[in-house]
Amino acid sequence: MTHQLDQYRGFTSSILEESIEKLKTYLSFPTISAQNTAILETVEFVVSMIDELGGTTQVLDDLGGNPVIYGHFAAGDKGDSSKTLLFYNHYDVQPPEPLDEWHTEPFNPTVIDGTLYARGASDNKGDLVARLTAIKVLQETEGGLPCNIKFMIEGEEEIGSPNLPPYLEKYKDLFNADACIWEFGGKDEKERISMVAGIKGMAYLELSCVGADIDMHSSVGAYVDNAAWRLVQALASMKNKENEILVEGFFDGIIPPTEEEIEAVKNLPFNEDAVAELYGLKRPLITASRGRDPREAMVFEPTMTICGIESGYTGPGAKTVLPKKATAKVDCRLVPGQDPDHILACVQKHLLTQGFSDVEVSMINGQKAYRSDYSHPFVHLVQETAREVYQSEVVLAPNSAGTGPMFIFGEYLGLPIVSTGVGWVGSKAHAPNESIRLKDFEQGVVHMAFMLASLPKALSVTA
Amino acid sequence: MTHQLDQYRGFTSSILEESIEKLKTYLSFPTISAQNTAILETVEFVVSMIDELGGTTQVLDDLGGNPVIYGHFAAGDKGDSSKTLLFYNHYDVQPPEPLDEWHTEPFNPTVIDGTLYARGASDNKGDLVARLTAIKVLQETEGGLPCNIKFMIEGEEEIGSPNLPPYLEKYKDLFNADACIWEFGGKDEKERISMVAGIKGMAYLELSCVGADIDMHSSVGAYVDNAAWRLVQALASMKNKENEILVEGFFDGIIPPTEEEIEAVKNLPFNEDAVAELYGLKRPLITASRGRDPREAMVFEPTMTICGIESGYTGPGAKTVLPKKATAKVDCRLVPGQDPDHILACVQKHLLTQGFSDVEVSMINGQKAYRSDYSHPFVHLVQETAREVYQSEVVLAPNSAGTGPMFIFGEYLGLPIVSTGVGWVGSKAHAPNESIRLKDFEQGVVHMAFMLASLPKALSVTA
Repeated sequence: MTHQLDQYRGFTSSILEESIEKLKTYLSFPTISAQNTAILETVEFVVSMIDELGGTTQVLDDLGGNPVIYGHFAAGDKGDSSKTLLFYNHYDVQPPEPLDEWHTEPFNPTVIDGTLYARGASDNKGDLVARLTAIKVLQETEGGLPCNIKFMIEGEEEIGSPNLPPYLEKYKDLFNADACIWEFGGKDEKERISMVAGIKGMAYLELSCVGADIDMHSSVGAYVDNAAWRLVQALASMKNKENEILVEGFFDGIIPPTEEEIEAVKNLPFNEDAVAELYGLKRPLITASRGRDPREAMVFEPTMTICGIESGYTGPGAKTVLPKKATAKVDCRLVPGQDPDHILACVQKHLLTQGFSDVEVSMINGQKAYRSDYSHPFVHLVQETAREVYQSEVVLAPNSAGTGPMFIFGEYLGLPIVSTGVGWVGSKAHAPNESIRLKDFEQGVVHMAFMLASLPKALSVTA
Repeated sequence: MTHQLDQYRGFTSSILEESIEKLKTYLSFPTISAQNTAILETVEFVVSMIDELGGTTQVLDDLGGNPVIYGHFAAGDKGDSSKTLLFYNHYDVQPPEPLDEWHTEPFNPTVIDGTLYARGASDNKGDLVARLTAIKVLQETEGGLPCNIKFMIEGEEEIGSPNLPPYLEKYKDLFNADACIWEFGGKDEKERISMVAGIKGMAYLELSCVGADIDMHSSVGAYVDNAAWRLVQALASMKNKENEILVEGFFDGIIPPTEEEIEAVKNLPFNEDAVAELYGLKRPLITASRGRDPREAMVFEPTMTICGIESGYTGPGAKTVLPKKATAKVDCRLVPGQDPDHILACVQKHLLTQGFSDVEVSMINGQKAYRSDYSHPFVHLVQETAREVYQSEVVLAPNSAGTGPMFIFGEYLGLPIVSTGVGWVGSKAHAPNESIRLKDFEQGVVHMAFMLASLPKALSVTA
């Protein structure tokens, strides 16, 4: 194994410059899905990268939205053609604004001291090129691929993948695989390799209360009801000041974590002081008062967060208005077993039961959580190979605290999923000066090649 | 008396056109205090109007802000020089915007079908000219004034009279009087004469909670506390969903209404259906659930109104942010006996007691309420003379539901105050197409002349 790894390392090193040049070209396309720029040029370029390596592609665009790219590489003669790995990536990027905070041009990829700066470097163009480079490494060092490899590369991840579910449903046979590597990952502030085997879901709700047709002079507050007070009271009835969610049925269906998952979470790194300093927190963590471990809360507990609230006059000084309307945005992060539609129904029922029939609630965005079987051999494989390649601590959380369209992959394809990638703690995804470090890219290539080489054997255990 | 009234009516009618021309000139000055325009020209013109009638003036400007005009007319030979009435007016107006909603030019006063349109027509230039015209009526028909008459005409009412208190304190002997007519009033939708003998106070508070130095990704809601939730919980602790104010000490010191005031309030007109239709209310009045009379609430009960609340993301769609900060503006209308500083202290203590030491509260604007002695002969005089002049129902509330700088007059000058004026239900103060009707102006002149003529005798009852 060590000889094999050395071979991979050596070959990766020899083609690194060429790979980085390819990535720089890819990063030069301003593929901003929110602004619909450079979409087709980017698709063409991605297809050409797969073609060059001998893969086949299909550009799916029959169900609306930006095209979804399907890529396919067959197992080599010595490989196991009964096993297939799916890579999920996206070719779109966040808008680069605010431009004046960039030290380099966001779409003119620039390497400074071994770090490559460009919008999309870490999220998610770097990962795609690393994965394609791993295919080249295997082709050249092994004479072919150890298994079939598929790609799903979508173009609307940065705007919430609104059109992805129907593509996945219609083309589930095309994308069918045994396991999936999700788009992102990287190293934490202590250079530990951080991965997740699942993702939280979401029910993003909007609550609104309309009390009148017009804003009124606040002197009528003596007898006219107030939409802002109604909304405040409705919200206060949903979660108490001890941060306990009071909506009946909210916790319905939650799948309790396994012993292995609980154990894994106990081993996650978490530095409360560092978190407090990073954000400049003014109060203790809310888990403290409940005697809970913040890591358990992060992975296993659903949340209910006010993301925004607005009513009436919010400018400087005083305006004596009794507002006609009040709205709030409430983001519920869900754990496996919870259903966004059920959450919406429970909140609706709660409001009625509590006497807030005037407070309406709708769901802007609903996604179920997904958590792979933590004891699945694939999950172990990704973790173990990372340990060997990186020679670092590997931290694999049962699921992330964030959200993504992972559940639909689990539902339609029924496979274990691990997210890992070439980012670092300073990657600044979604922010100015996004970057990856070239050494992380290089190690990521080797990790993917090494993981793929071991995949058929690892998956045969369960077959 | 009827002969006297006829004389006043006749003479007023004969000088009406001349008076309206004077008013139109006055209205042509764009005296916008918020924009600091035409202040000195307007002051000069007001002084000239008083001079022309033989009054004396002092322009007070030693304490900052726009000048405060003091005007004085001595009692005539047949009058009672031991009695003095004070008129409170202001020469500044609201900005005219939005300009495109005006049917005429706001500073080009225009009469259409007996109605005079201009910014300031009803608030408050029309009232000053009506009062000066009443002086002329008395001078010409009676050969002199029945008592001394003083004017306080300030120039910052539309921006909250920030500089008035020190002027009133320093010059209290100058403005000293036995009774005061406040700036405004008029006819309601049923042509009833609507007056008030007091005003509610105000404690306009701003509550804010800062949870962190930066906005955070909402996935950290599992363990990071949320400034928006904290503020919502803090507000919900201050007033329950039955609209009961829960802040200890909030009701301290309230002077209970007298039997006469209670009786007066029972006779105020209040059409619940009309109110609901005017504003397009979606819920019943809050007084309904408490079995309270909305008129009593309007006059005798303090309020606590959320005028505005803001936190985090309030644009369209979803943004998954855990906001660093939340703020709310809360307007408490106070009744006589309540002290804004004490209200602030009570809210501060409440927040601490309830565990919200992270929610800060400050006062943007504090004014005490003022209510004249409802049984004072002056209050009766203004009411009775109005009945006789207008031959209409007169509705005199012990205090308005709104707020103004009346308390400082009561405090420094210790006099009864009634607010009455030449407006009508369509006057649109602060809005485009502000107006007064010429017949209301004419009646208002007669009312003031007739009231002044009877003042010495009425006030002698208490002397």
